[in-house]
Amino acid sequence: MTTISVLGLGAMGSALAKAFLKNGYATTVWNRTEAKADALVAQGASKASTIEQAIEASDTLVLCVVTNDVVHAILDEAKDAIQGKTIVNLTNGTPNQARDLAVRATKHHAEYLDGGIMAVPPMIGTEAGYVLYSGPQPVFERLEKTLRALGGTKYVGADAGLAALYDLALLTGMYGQTIGQVQALALIRSAGVEAEGFMRDLLDPWMKAMAAFSTEFAQQVDAGNHTENVVSPLGMQAAAFHNLIDAAGEQGVSADLFKPLQSLLNEAVDQGHDNADLSVLVDLLRR
Amino acid sequence: MTTISVLGLGAMGSALAKAFLKNGYATTVWNRTEAKADALVAQGASKASTIEQAIEASDTLVLCVVTNDVVHAILDEAKDAIQGKTIVNLTNGTPNQARDLAVRATKHHAEYLDGGIMAVPPMIGTEAGYVLYSGPQPVFERLEKTLRALGGTKYVGADAGLAALYDLALLTGMYGQTIGQVQALALIRSAGVEAEGFMRDLLDPWMKAMAAFSTEFAQQVDAGNHTENVVSPLGMQAAAFHNLIDAAGEQGVSADLFKPLQSLLNEAVDQGHDNADLSVLVDLLRR
Repeated sequence: MTTISVLGLGAMGSALAKAFLKNGYATTVWNRTEAKADALVAQGASKASTIEQAIEASDTLVLCVVTNDVVHAILDEAKDAIQGKTIVNLTNGTPNQARDLAVRATKHHAEYLDGGIMAVPPMIGTEAGYVLYSGPQPVFERLEKTLRALGGTKYVGADAGLAALYDLALLTGMYGQTIGQVQALALIRSAGVEAEGFMRDLLDPWMKAMAAFSTEFAQQVDAGNHTENVVSPLGMQAAAFHNLIDAAGEQGVSADLFKPLQSLLNEAVDQGHDNADLSVLVDLLRR
Repeated sequence: MTTISVLGLGAMGSALAKAFLKNGYATTVWNRTEAKADALVAQGASKASTIEQAIEASDTLVLCVVTNDVVHAILDEAKDAIQGKTIVNLTNGTPNQARDLAVRATKHHAEYLDGGIMAVPPMIGTEAGYVLYSGPQPVFERLEKTLRALGGTKYVGADAGLAALYDLALLTGMYGQTIGQVQALALIRSAGVEAEGFMRDLLDPWMKAMAAFSTEFAQQVDAGNHTENVVSPLGMQAAAFHNLIDAAGEQGVSADLFKPLQSLLNEAVDQGHDNADLSVLVDLLRR
C-alpha cells in the first residue's frame, strides 16, 4: 500500500492528510510551524520534524504549500532524498510553474504529477469536489486509487501545466459569473430592490437559460466560425452596451468591472466583426 | 378590444407587431423607412404613413425604436395626438430615460408603461422569453392580457425606471457569464484543448455548481452581513488571484477583462474585508 507524506498543513493540506488517514493510508505530516500537525497526529498521522524526514518516510509526497516558490525550496533542500519518490504537487500556481517543477523533479530522478483542487477544504474526500491531474499518465494510473481518497479525479494530460491551466480556466469562469452577479445586485440594490427575490426569481433562472447556448458557443470557438446562426449580432450588442455603463452611473454604481468588455466589443466592431457572435471574442483575447 | 399601433419595425418591432396580429389584435404599424411595413401589411396590419396617423389609429402605442431620443422626438412631434393614449415603450434605454419619458407622457395626458424585453426576436410570442414592465400598476393590469401576446409578463413596480433597471441588471449578469466563458475558453484553447468537451464536461457543470450558492450570496447582500459561513475568504482569493492574470500572460491571452476585479479585490482587502465573502463587493461597487 502506498505510503504518503503531506507537506504543508494549511486548511487544505490538513483536509488532504485527514482524507488519507480516513482511508487507511500510513500518513506522515510536516509543516513549517509544527503545531499544525498535532490535530492530525491525534488522528493517527506520524509527525516529521524536518522536510527530509517527511520525504524519507513515504513513497508519495503530496505538497500543498503557499506558493510554488516554497515547492522549489523544498525540492532544493532535499534533492537527494526525493530520488525515486513520486511528487503530487497540489499547490496553487500557474501552468509554467508546474512545467518548471516537472523538469526539476525529473532532474532529481523523481516522478511529478501536478494537481488543481476544484474544491474547498470541507469538500475534500467527498464527491462534491474533484482534483484535476496532469503529468505522466502511467504515474497517474498507478496512484489513482490512492488519490480517490481526496474525492473525484480527472486526468487532463501529459503536459504537467494542464491541471493548473484547467483549474485557472474554471476559476476564471466562476469569477466571470461573480462579476455578473455582484454588478447586477449592486444595480438592483441601488433602487432598494431585495436581492434574494431578484436572484431566485430572475437572475439565476436567466443565467441558467443563457447557459443553454454554451455548448454551441464552444463549438463555434473550435470551428473558428462565428457567423452562422447568430441570434444577436455583436455589432448590435456593442451599440447598446453603453446603456449598462450609463445605468450604473445614474444609479451610483461603479461600472469599472464592465469597461474592458465594452472596449473589447468596440475593438471587435472596428475589426469588422459586427455580424459575428460573441464567441469571436475568444479569438480576440488570444494575441 | 384594445387596438395597437407598433412604432418602429426593426427585427424586434416587427416581431412584436406579428405577435399582436397573430393574437387577433387590430394592429397599425409605422416605420421611418416605410418598406419595412410591407411584410406586416401582408399579414393583416394597417400601415400608417405618418407618426400622427399611427398614434390616432389605436388606443395603445407600442414603441420599439433605436433609442429613447427617438421616443422623445415622436412624443414632441405628436404631442396633441397622444392625449388619452397609453404608451408602452419597449425601446432599450436607461432607468432615468424611462423616468423622464414617464414625466413627459403625463404632461401630455398620456399613460406610460416602460418595458424591458428579455428575449431575442424569435422568442417573442413564446414562453421562452418575457417582458419586464414598470409604471402605474392599474395600467399594467388593464393591458396585461394584451401584453401576453408577446410572451411572459413580469410587473416590477410603479417607478417607471425599474423595468430598464431589471433588464440591464439581467444583461449585466449574462455579460459577466460571457466574460468568464470567453476568458476560460481563450485559456484552454491556448493549450490546444478542444473547447466543446471542456465546456460540456467541466466549465458548464462547474458554473452550475457554483450558482448553487447564489441565493445565499443574495441573502448576505440583503442583510449587509458578509462574514458568516465564509468558506473561501476574500483575502485568500485576492492573494491567489494573480495566478489567473499570470497564467493568461504565460499563455498569450489578454487578462484585461479580469484586471478590474483584481483591483476591486485588493481594494476590499485594503478596507479590511479579508475575512468576508465576495458578496461584500456589491457594497464596494455602490459609492
